[in-house]
Amino acid sequence: MEKKKVAVILSGCGVYDGSEIYESTLVMLALDKAGVAYQCMAPNVEQLHVINHLTGEEMQEKRNVLVESARLARGEIIDLADANPDDYAGLIFPGGFGAAKNLSSFAVAGADMVVNPTVANFTQSMHMMNKIIGLVCIAPVMAPLLFGEGVKCTIGTDKDTAAVISAMGGKHQDCPVEDFYVDEERNIVTTPAYMLAGSISQAAIGIDKLVGVVIARLRFYVI
Amino acid sequence: MEKKKVAVILSGCGVYDGSEIYESTLVMLALDKAGVAYQCMAPNVEQLHVINHLTGEEMQEKRNVLVESARLARGEIIDLADANPDDYAGLIFPGGFGAAKNLSSFAVAGADMVVNPTVANFTQSMHMMNKIIGLVCIAPVMAPLLFGEGVKCTIGTDKDTAAVISAMGGKHQDCPVEDFYVDEERNIVTTPAYMLAGSISQAAIGIDKLVGVVIARLRFYVI
Repeated sequence: MEKKKVAVILSGCGVYDGSEIYESTLVMLALDKAGVAYQCMAPNVEQLHVINHLTGEEMQEKRNVLVESARLARGEIIDLADANPDDYAGLIFPGGFGAAKNLSSFAVAGADMVVNPTVANFTQSMHMMNKIIGLVCIAPVMAPLLFGEGVKCTIGTDKDTAAVISAMGGKHQDCPVEDFYVDEERNIVTTPAYMLAGSISQAAIGIDKLVGVVIARLRFYVI
Repeated sequence: MEKKKVAVILSGCGVYDGSEIYESTLVMLALDKAGVAYQCMAPNVEQLHVINHLTGEEMQEKRNVLVESARLARGEIIDLADANPDDYAGLIFPGGFGAAKNLSSFAVAGADMVVNPTVANFTQSMHMMNKIIGLVCIAPVMAPLLFGEGVKCTIGTDKDTAAVISAMGGKHQDCPVEDFYVDEERNIVTTPAYMLAGSISQAAIGIDKLVGVVIARLRFYVI
């Protein structure tokens, strides 16, 4: 039987309005180095906005999350709406503001946020099958809505973001950049990455560990 | 005295119309892991065109090379026109079609190509100081124009591209993906990366080696 892949959900291409590029690349590099196949996917929706990454200012144009995420996948990407949770053994969300702007409305709504329904459906289906799910950087703000009250996760040490997670029923755990946190009961792993990282190699330490946890827990699902 | 940085010249953000994202990230990761500081820079010019990376088709919009390259640098980028060659100990060009579309006109003009004058000025100034210069993937097509007739370099094994390099006076050397080629006389190192790579970890092997060569040859310039 063919080995199942790990699903990687992207949210655009660029830290300020999409997926954080280094985090996404590091996730894929760590999976590929271990010989674990992955499939990139993203929701086919318009980005919340487009940020000029040189100036930090909003640009007056529109971009599509799936189309821009395709840049990060060298075109090897599918519409999340077409992905079947049965085909995947695990799931990883890289970070970047896209997770808080395109996959959810955290960036504009805080604790009143919602998660994109296509993202929620796929992720909760994976979770119902007890498959390992990893969330990097800011992506864990979606954990309370996706995995229910009491979910334990980390976004590092940022008190404001941690307070929002608590307000939504999550149990935030402080965590340094080179470490990760596992909610054993829910099979969820999180790491701060660029919530705390000062350099790409620093981000890589925690991400390599998170991917290692994901891979270790694939064994129960890969035939 | 402060250690000099390595300059990394980007050409946009995405393999089909800019810098190849994985190659760029892998270059920066390898430099950072070794404790070598780098500075991203790009020419402030319009992209040749914008490619929808999901469909491969051209999009009817315009994007700026410096602005899009900023995505790959988390905003930490400077206009190549403002970069002083004296401030850098070495230079690396990641690949991606941006090197052949935005930094040069290889993609449309072949052997009649020109190199963007800002790119040529900076690079030739570095070369005149005998500083190490690395070029990844398709970027070595610029080598004959930048470094003169007889320059030895590789883009892997693609006969058509190699023929264009020869037509411009370069001496192409076939090279497998996990290896690199050094023109000892000119202090130029090249590696095929995604000209041949089938996966990100395969690309990483040659890129890690190229960055290793660059770092080894920085010693003469870093005080």
